[in-house]
Amino acid sequence: MPMILTVTLNPAWDVTYVVDRLLPGGTNRVTSASGRAGGKGVNVGRVLQQMGAEVLVSGVVGGATGSLLLAELSASSVPHAMLEEAPETRRTVTVMEADGSATVLNEAGAAGEPALWTRWLRHYDRLVGDAAVVVLSGSLPPWAPARAYAELTAHAHAAGALVVLDTSGPPLVAALPARPDLVKPNEEEVLHATGAPDVLAAASGMFAAGVPRVVVSRGAEGLLAVDADGPLTVVPPTLVPVNPTGAGDALAAGLALGLVSAEPWPDVLRRAVAWSAAAVLHPSAGTLAVEALDDIAAGTMVRAALPAPNPR
Amino acid sequence: MPMILTVTLNPAWDVTYVVDRLLPGGTNRVTSASGRAGGKGVNVGRVLQQMGAEVLVSGVVGGATGSLLLAELSASSVPHAMLEEAPETRRTVTVMEADGSATVLNEAGAAGEPALWTRWLRHYDRLVGDAAVVVLSGSLPPWAPARAYAELTAHAHAAGALVVLDTSGPPLVAALPARPDLVKPNEEEVLHATGAPDVLAAASGMFAAGVPRVVVSRGAEGLLAVDADGPLTVVPPTLVPVNPTGAGDALAAGLALGLVSAEPWPDVLRRAVAWSAAAVLHPSAGTLAVEALDDIAAGTMVRAALPAPNPR
Repeated sequence: MPMILTVTLNPAWDVTYVVDRLLPGGTNRVTSASGRAGGKGVNVGRVLQQMGAEVLVSGVVGGATGSLLLAELSASSVPHAMLEEAPETRRTVTVMEADGSATVLNEAGAAGEPALWTRWLRHYDRLVGDAAVVVLSGSLPPWAPARAYAELTAHAHAAGALVVLDTSGPPLVAALPARPDLVKPNEEEVLHATGAPDVLAAASGMFAAGVPRVVVSRGAEGLLAVDADGPLTVVPPTLVPVNPTGAGDALAAGLALGLVSAEPWPDVLRRAVAWSAAAVLHPSAGTLAVEALDDIAAGTMVRAALPAPNPR
Repeated sequence: MPMILTVTLNPAWDVTYVVDRLLPGGTNRVTSASGRAGGKGVNVGRVLQQMGAEVLVSGVVGGATGSLLLAELSASSVPHAMLEEAPETRRTVTVMEADGSATVLNEAGAAGEPALWTRWLRHYDRLVGDAAVVVLSGSLPPWAPARAYAELTAHAHAAGALVVLDTSGPPLVAALPARPDLVKPNEEEVLHATGAPDVLAAASGMFAAGVPRVVVSRGAEGLLAVDADGPLTVVPPTLVPVNPTGAGDALAAGLALGLVSAEPWPDVLRRAVAWSAAAVLHPSAGTLAVEALDDIAAGTMVRAALPAPNPR
């Protein structure tokens, strides 16, 4: 089975605090505290592992918090090959209230030294030779260069691996000249990256610029995909979400597996959308409500996309 | 110089997050994250070390977070002899906003196994023989028995050490029969523990029940002290507080040092109140603004306390 390598350069130890009601400016008793390895590529890895694909989760972790992250990945049977280096891995804290509202605090992560990039590239090059697909996900840590994802794409291509890129902003724009095999921005990200007037024009523009498959995630509305066969929309059935975090990572996981499967592209898109929707039905990011998969896939519509009727 | 042993059974790794403005229910970028060993007895130890007293900070720490705490104490040159045992040390997270407001999230700490109490007692007994005074501070962890502070007081007395107790609620009430040499509740705590109609009656009742020195901290108003020479009030000058956290711990530090000094008791109280006020002028808990100490002490009034004019 072809191996899928996920890359999370800026992983986090995701802490969840449960409080009765968050009192801003006050002292709050945390009734339950739990931690879990986090970061988009970690979630992609969890989904692929759950669905029986061969996957290896990579990235850079450090310090005591990095050790917690590694121990949890091992305990969860997620195959991993993280580079262990300073600086200390960052944390996120999500404060859950009894009414379901969630307040998220995201640490940026320590700066680290630029030489870490060279050490990471050496680590990455050792892993990428065994990979059929590399999934590059998320934000860049302070120690990574602006063109980090372009360089990782080039190294993957040199090693014969395909690349799925799931990032936004300057790291996305800087990576496009390296022509990743699939990019997965959301609507806001693709509009921002291209300056196009609508999502179809933006995705088509990115395709015309040399990206063979552009998949724009649209939340509960599914996705818009542009490749050499033209634009498609894929829309899942209406669901009552449990936890939307990680839906995009489940989509990336399904797309990555699709790149190395023999399935027709529309079927790949349908399966990936179903994974994303099944992720939304599970309380934990990176885990699918598998019992719902068949129904969701059966209710997912794949259609040719038409240009916006009234482009600005 | 006589050694002062501080005990913090439920220490914490105190994390401070800086955000521009906390958006409850939203995603917040943490612009700065820092950590520091915390817990009341740790603050007492920092103050005594800063003021040149011989001190040893003890307690129980565990896991990766415990290691962070020990490393910070060492880096800060605070002498420590912590028992290293599971469970993982708890954290607190304080979210500071640009407008100065602070939202505190307090983890309760993992349960731990009751056998830990026996191992802690063995560790404590080895340390207490070298101590002239033991300062018992703060809440009890889940693994400690309800009468924990009574037992630690009895062991200290058996070893010839005096005991300062700074706790509240059931741990305070349960410790009184062991007759700690000094208790330092605040107004609310002493009223709650005794059910008396006013603070002077409450402190006098605790004294009559066998505690030789009862010191009730009253925030910016200083303290009310009851001992065999009768009740005294000690009032510092009016100050603009910088960070009130740790003021009570600085007071406990000053009182503990006073128990083994040759100073007259009113001078001990004046010095302890000055330490508490100087702690409020420093941004970090457990550190005094020493440059202000002389002025504060000179402006601190010690007076005989009168019964409340109109007792309920």
